[in-house]
Amino acid sequence: MGKIYVVGLGPGAGSQMTLCAKDVIEHCPVITGYTVYVDLLKEEFPDKVYLTTPMKQEVQRCEMAFQEAEKGHDVAMVCSGDAGIYGMAGLLYEVGKKYPDIELEIIPGITAACGGAAVLGAPLMHDFAVISLSDLLTPWEKIEKRLRAAAMADFVICLYNPSSKKRADYLSRACDCMLEYKRKDTVCGIVRNIGRREESYEILTLEALKEKQTDMFTTVFIGNEQTDIIRGKMVTPRGYRNV
Amino acid sequence: MGKIYVVGLGPGAGSQMTLCAKDVIEHCPVITGYTVYVDLLKEEFPDKVYLTTPMKQEVQRCEMAFQEAEKGHDVAMVCSGDAGIYGMAGLLYEVGKKYPDIELEIIPGITAACGGAAVLGAPLMHDFAVISLSDLLTPWEKIEKRLRAAAMADFVICLYNPSSKKRADYLSRACDCMLEYKRKDTVCGIVRNIGRREESYEILTLEALKEKQTDMFTTVFIGNEQTDIIRGKMVTPRGYRNV
Ligand SMILES: C[S@@+](CC[C@H](N)C(=O)[O-])C[C@H]1O[C@@H](n2cnc3c(N)ncnc32)[C@H](O)[C@@H]1O
Ligand SMILES: C[S@@+](CC[C@H](N)C(=O)[O-])C[C@H]1O[C@@H](n2cnc3c(N)ncnc32)[C@H](O)[C@@H]1O
Repeated sequence: MGKIYVVGLGPGAGSQMTLCAKDVIEHCPVITGYTVYVDLLKEEFPDKVYLTTPMKQEVQRCEMAFQEAEKGHDVAMVCSGDAGIYGMAGLLYEVGKKYPDIELEIIPGITAACGGAAVLGAPLMHDFAVISLSDLLTPWEKIEKRLRAAAMADFVICLYNPSSKKRADYLSRACDCMLEYKRKDTVCGIVRNIGRREESYEILTLEALKEKQTDMFTTVFIGNEQTDIIRGKMVTPRGYRNV
Repeated sequence: MGKIYVVGLGPGAGSQMTLCAKDVIEHCPVITGYTVYVDLLKEEFPDKVYLTTPMKQEVQRCEMAFQEAEKGHDVAMVCSGDAGIYGMAGLLYEVGKKYPDIELEIIPGITAACGGAAVLGAPLMHDFAVISLSDLLTPWEKIEKRLRAAAMADFVICLYNPSSKKRADYLSRACDCMLEYKRKDTVCGIVRNIGRREESYEILTLEALKEKQTDMFTTVFIGNEQTDIIRGKMVTPRGYRNV
């Protein structure tokens, strides 16, 4: 029996990969994942079997991985960022109920929240909430409830999947929820293409964020009451400034 | 002028270090940080200048780093996990107001939430909140407010600094707050010594978690309404199960 490794490649799948992730990829004869990430690996590791499925066929991709493992091959299922944060790890456990003999191991990666925070400065130095604005699998009412609760309790908030073509006004609606509790001039940050050549960021107020169009390669950060701009970067102090 | 790199080593500072973190450490002639992490690096990189300060002297450690950089040396300030999550990144920006000419770069690392989640299974697959139970720099009332808000909105919750000798009953008090909104049988997980030889974990109910003693090398996970035990692991489904 082979084993399945679920490997987070970090954002960009480049030098923010861990030593462990790299070892696992070198070790596994079979690699599977979204086409984009698999293509990045193909160049560096040409001598592997690569199996891909289109987007939205996640269950099939998991089944394929278990079937390869049943044939005796170790498989690396690769994801961007961390495999356990809006990634493939959970689904592999669910599909894996049918394959109790095949071992699963999760290899963590740098998630967009950590990678993006490093680009912006130090926005996540205090308690924070991570929320996805995708309502594909979660009702929008629940997303709004979480946005309000997190804003009310003064969490720093990090938004994944802030918008897409079909959901162009979601970020704006999310900002409205947070503006019920957070000041208009709350320091916010947007990071695009973390870890890729085209990486870019912007620091702006919550009021300005409400008017922004973003895309699916963007992660958004909303500060807490104390988040400030220092040296041109977004910085949340660890605790009370005068302690 | 030298430059300061603030480097997250990942939990355990071993194979969960990123390729980039390793390159930066190889490159910098001066390394600073808590004694524990610095000692781990000394074995692998004996030919460096190592500067350490005791715990609680974080401001001094930052000053020392800037002074070394002023002398022209590149400095790596190392932290466990991610430098931007309850780490040193924020303080370096604050102290760095006095040293505007010295560049700062943050190199992200695997934080305990991601490293611990990988050990437990896939608990963070849906929206989550990260809360520190240390009231050294945050009033306990604010911590309780955040615990209640996160529990009320059905976030998965990840607790850092769950207790110490002086704060033996904090985790129990935190569980009481969460029990106001979360079921007694909510699936929870505890991970100790992530990424170290002695790594261990336990999966238990929120009711049982309330009675647990933990220490400062522990990260605690509290599931959401849908978190389940699958194949002996803690798994939060990505969205509604029947979608
Ligand atoms: C389906 S989630 C996958 C998250 C991934 N597993 C992680 O841990 O980073 C996709 C969302 O993650 C964020 N994201 C992932 N990679 C990113 C990158 N390189 N730059 C900016 N945001 C990114 C964006 O918000 C994107 O819409
Ligand atoms: C001051 S915070 C530092 C967090 C670190 N910067 C990170 O991103 O993981 C210390 C807390 O992080 C968690 N932690 C850090 N390293 C850990 C490890 N190896 N195993 C378990 N928990 C850890 C524990 O909750 C600990 O009390």
